[in-house]
Amino acid sequence: MNTSQNITSAEHLAQVQARYDDSRLGEVVKAAIKHLHGFVEEVGLTREEWFAGIDFLTRTGQMCSDNRQEFILLSDTLGVSMLVEMINHVAAPGTTEPTVFGPFHVEGAVHREAGASIVVDPTETPQINFSGRVLDLEGNPIQGATLDVWQTADNGFYDVQDPDQTPGNMRGVFTTDVDGRYSFRTVPPIDYTVPSDGPAGDLLLRTGRHPWRPAHTHLVVEAPGYQSVITHLFDANSQYLDSDAVFGVRPSLIVDMSSDEVHYDFVLDRT
Amino acid sequence: MNTSQNITSAEHLAQVQARYDDSRLGEVVKAAIKHLHGFVEEVGLTREEWFAGIDFLTRTGQMCSDNRQEFILLSDTLGVSMLVEMINHVAAPGTTEPTVFGPFHVEGAVHREAGASIVVDPTETPQINFSGRVLDLEGNPIQGATLDVWQTADNGFYDVQDPDQTPGNMRGVFTTDVDGRYSFRTVPPIDYTVPSDGPAGDLLLRTGRHPWRPAHTHLVVEAPGYQSVITHLFDANSQYLDSDAVFGVRPSLIVDMSSDEVHYDFVLDRT
Repeated sequence: MNTSQNITSAEHLAQVQARYDDSRLGEVVKAAIKHLHGFVEEVGLTREEWFAGIDFLTRTGQMCSDNRQEFILLSDTLGVSMLVEMINHVAAPGTTEPTVFGPFHVEGAVHREAGASIVVDPTETPQINFSGRVLDLEGNPIQGATLDVWQTADNGFYDVQDPDQTPGNMRGVFTTDVDGRYSFRTVPPIDYTVPSDGPAGDLLLRTGRHPWRPAHTHLVVEAPGYQSVITHLFDANSQYLDSDAVFGVRPSLIVDMSSDEVHYDFVLDRT
Repeated sequence: MNTSQNITSAEHLAQVQARYDDSRLGEVVKAAIKHLHGFVEEVGLTREEWFAGIDFLTRTGQMCSDNRQEFILLSDTLGVSMLVEMINHVAAPGTTEPTVFGPFHVEGAVHREAGASIVVDPTETPQINFSGRVLDLEGNPIQGATLDVWQTADNGFYDVQDPDQTPGNMRGVFTTDVDGRYSFRTVPPIDYTVPSDGPAGDLLLRTGRHPWRPAHTHLVVEAPGYQSVITHLFDANSQYLDSDAVFGVRPSLIVDMSSDEVHYDFVLDRT
């Protein structure tokens, strides 16, 4: 007969970590393991909860398709995506703040003339004009900067979510002029929910959260020789500014979109 | 123009956690978020690494099927499953140590007579006999305890992994007699690899690890009024006892399976 020779959870962790090599991937996995074990021990995870977690992750993976990335949505709603952006965007103070990229950007959007509208499909919603400049940290205009803009249509869906929209509706790339000026037209963005019919949305609803995002327009602002910024502009009139489901709101990115003319200047740091 | 109003990662974490209710699920998710954010910050996760992680989790979920649970395999290989077992099995010192359950147990295995073999399909491998007693902490025999036994065949595969095996091959439930004695026959277990053709296995190979498990026989020992134990017996002659891919080995569970007769007594604590 043998008797129990228990090891502590700290000894167990050390034994697991010792198996990994010193590659970057090995170091990342060792850190992940440390935090995973720390989580399990801190909450005293039961076998049933462990299995519920396995099942949750499995369903999350199986919800993913060419048109749906449920793990990105989960990362977004847990504040992880925003944290990754905060850590990796290390521009100087005074530059435009970044926010989450989100899953709805499309590469290769159409370049449009200054002042053109991103609204392709007919709509009765009155359009507003966004304009301003792209500047460097000294306030000098940046000519030839591009603004890649995307937004939901006035039904709250992106073209890639909505088979009734023309592909490319509510998307466009604009270029600044010699004075660093840009302008484009669009319908005002509206509040919408992140997809709540999958595991990530279900987790929100079961823990007292809501799936709403405050009305916003997405932009990636880029210029040669400058650090690009992935950001949004948020409508100051949204009721969800304090409870964005993906934690993307920054006060510096809030503008009043209730008038016909929205002005906003973007500031980029040199690379 | 607005200027950056950066928040710290600690402030960001607090904002995310503040959204959750105080239910058990909310508390578990808040702790998961704390450790997830801590991981991201500790390693300075890049955007590319973040996306590689999203992709890894997605592929792991999509590898799962009725016959394959890749997230359990991942949990096993990261030492999480063993940790969950360590935390939840709180029997007194002197009881048989638990180890990982693994994904290959089948509910409802056939009850067999004492001394019968779990080998259903013909094999030329000589069989050995396992025998011993199930005892309480005072050394008294426990009559009517059941041992649910399962193991790979001599090709290293469980019946549920191998269409050439008869379902139920290498499985059986045995009951102790009035003296607490059990016995059953089987082929000696052999070393085998966990499935290494998916994301979990790929991660092992890319971080300097191997997918081997030391030769073992699975058992669940249960008796009315006693805490059940999920465990293995490991062959002392395996070369992988110090590097089990799922961290299941405990010295108290190692026995010499090179002879025809293997003796092992199990000890259960009262509930």
